[in-house]
Amino acid sequence: MALGIGDDAALLNSTPGQQLVMASDTLVEGVHFPASASAGQIGSRALCVNLSDMAAMGATPRWFTLALTLPKEKANNQWLAGFSGAIAGIANRYNLALVGGDTTSGPLTVSLTLLGEVPSGDALQRSGAQPGDRVFVTGTLGDGVAGLKLAINENNIESVSDRLLQRFYSPYPQIVTGLRLRRIASACIDISDGLVADLGHICQSSEVSATISTEQLPIAEDVRQMAGDQAVSWALNGGDDYQLCFTVSADKLAALQRLIEQFELDVTAIGTIDAADKAYSVEKSGLVTVLDRNGDPIEIHQQGYKHFGQ
Amino acid sequence: MALGIGDDAALLNSTPGQQLVMASDTLVEGVHFPASASAGQIGSRALCVNLSDMAAMGATPRWFTLALTLPKEKANNQWLAGFSGAIAGIANRYNLALVGGDTTSGPLTVSLTLLGEVPSGDALQRSGAQPGDRVFVTGTLGDGVAGLKLAINENNIESVSDRLLQRFYSPYPQIVTGLRLRRIASACIDISDGLVADLGHICQSSEVSATISTEQLPIAEDVRQMAGDQAVSWALNGGDDYQLCFTVSADKLAALQRLIEQFELDVTAIGTIDAADKAYSVEKSGLVTVLDRNGDPIEIHQQGYKHFGQ
Repeated sequence: MALGIGDDAALLNSTPGQQLVMASDTLVEGVHFPASASAGQIGSRALCVNLSDMAAMGATPRWFTLALTLPKEKANNQWLAGFSGAIAGIANRYNLALVGGDTTSGPLTVSLTLLGEVPSGDALQRSGAQPGDRVFVTGTLGDGVAGLKLAINENNIESVSDRLLQRFYSPYPQIVTGLRLRRIASACIDISDGLVADLGHICQSSEVSATISTEQLPIAEDVRQMAGDQAVSWALNGGDDYQLCFTVSADKLAALQRLIEQFELDVTAIGTIDAADKAYSVEKSGLVTVLDRNGDPIEIHQQGYKHFGQ
Repeated sequence: MALGIGDDAALLNSTPGQQLVMASDTLVEGVHFPASASAGQIGSRALCVNLSDMAAMGATPRWFTLALTLPKEKANNQWLAGFSGAIAGIANRYNLALVGGDTTSGPLTVSLTLLGEVPSGDALQRSGAQPGDRVFVTGTLGDGVAGLKLAINENNIESVSDRLLQRFYSPYPQIVTGLRLRRIASACIDISDGLVADLGHICQSSEVSATISTEQLPIAEDVRQMAGDQAVSWALNGGDDYQLCFTVSADKLAALQRLIEQFELDVTAIGTIDAADKAYSVEKSGLVTVLDRNGDPIEIHQQGYKHFGQ
């Protein structure tokens, strides 16, 4: 950057030929993370969640500002070192510069604004899905809600899974995959509200509907064990996965396949965008049909996800 | 903008030949405004304060994100209409687009991030003041602290001044003046911490010292009446004025004079940057000398300004 922290504002040199991508996220104690969360866990989750929005746009994250509101009992060097250490570690991984922000006294709240860049015209959006496109997701589903349950209920669960707790506090933003999907995916979103709700957002923006199959949902073994007969429900409606859900048209499937092989991308086909003759319904609940192992549509009880405390 | 609210992030077209200017500000109830503040007052103050940072950089504000954390008792249409109405009114005045953000449940906190543009190389910075430059301020000083006193102590003051209360909740950001000062001011800052503290920031960044005169400070009549013998102290150390303090080299004074006449700018000369042979002291308290009406240096007791509640 041209001028960072220490003036009235930061001065940034944008790259010719690129569009800017801007996103904000706020995390409030008791709403987005439990009071038991450590400084490092809070910092890490705040930045990862926000980076996931950049991933969903196919953008390269470049700069961010951080507004931290901190109660007096946490305004000490130990807390701040844990928080900043986690933020700095992730920022360094993505070559992301902290360019401003402030710290104020008050109830624990973290608000981040990220600014990224994407070559003009290449941004991944929600609105490009077309009838016949295949629907894919990255990674595994249900990890986020499993991690959340561990985070808020640690003492009642016999063996806490480090991997799943990690998925809640450090969801791995799919930045690199997002960059690779430029010019390949026809639409893309990050799964923060739950697969059915977020694929529904793609459908709504694209004015299409989709059909997915429970049999094809990628669910990790530890989530299956923890969830029991709720595993499919967690995968469909659990939020906070921060994986990408994206669509690819038939003529780009070969290119996607090459990407998957070349970079060992963890990507699973879970369904298709319905043919155009299937009526488009503006009713949200009608946008995504979920078929069970017998090919029969199942009823979706919960569209999306409410954070604990809300 | 290319794509606004409704995708994972906003997509913005930056202007070729311009640098980006990015700044964040957070306002917390009980720290930056009293619990008695109305929704409209909170929205207006949040945006005006942040716009003042753009003014100090000589930037044109273009886009902003808004993160609002709201307690349940205020999450109603009336509160939100008052808040949004105030924000929208000011945003429209400056042709500024809201491009993202979110609303979460929790203690009342408003966090804004503004993104502006400035022609490459033209940004006003704190670091350009040179020995011999004249020091100027816009508007009048002490209005902010007078307005704050009225805001937090309304019932104990016999006649509340609407003008001064307005200065606290709707400080007028000096955007247009900031744009005009490009290529004329050698350094610029907005007066949020108080004149002595903020001129001190210019001195520190520029590695110079400054001398100003109490006789030349612009103080409004209502502030003089309210402050009594504290008027000079309010003007020197009261914060929240959101006026600009800037320096101009001798060869640009004629250009400034033309600007003042052409646009009827409300600008007052208050002192000079000291000659280079005056020792530069890194000690903050030594950077700004204040002379009284007899030309004798006065002691500055308070450098800057602490918000109530801190």
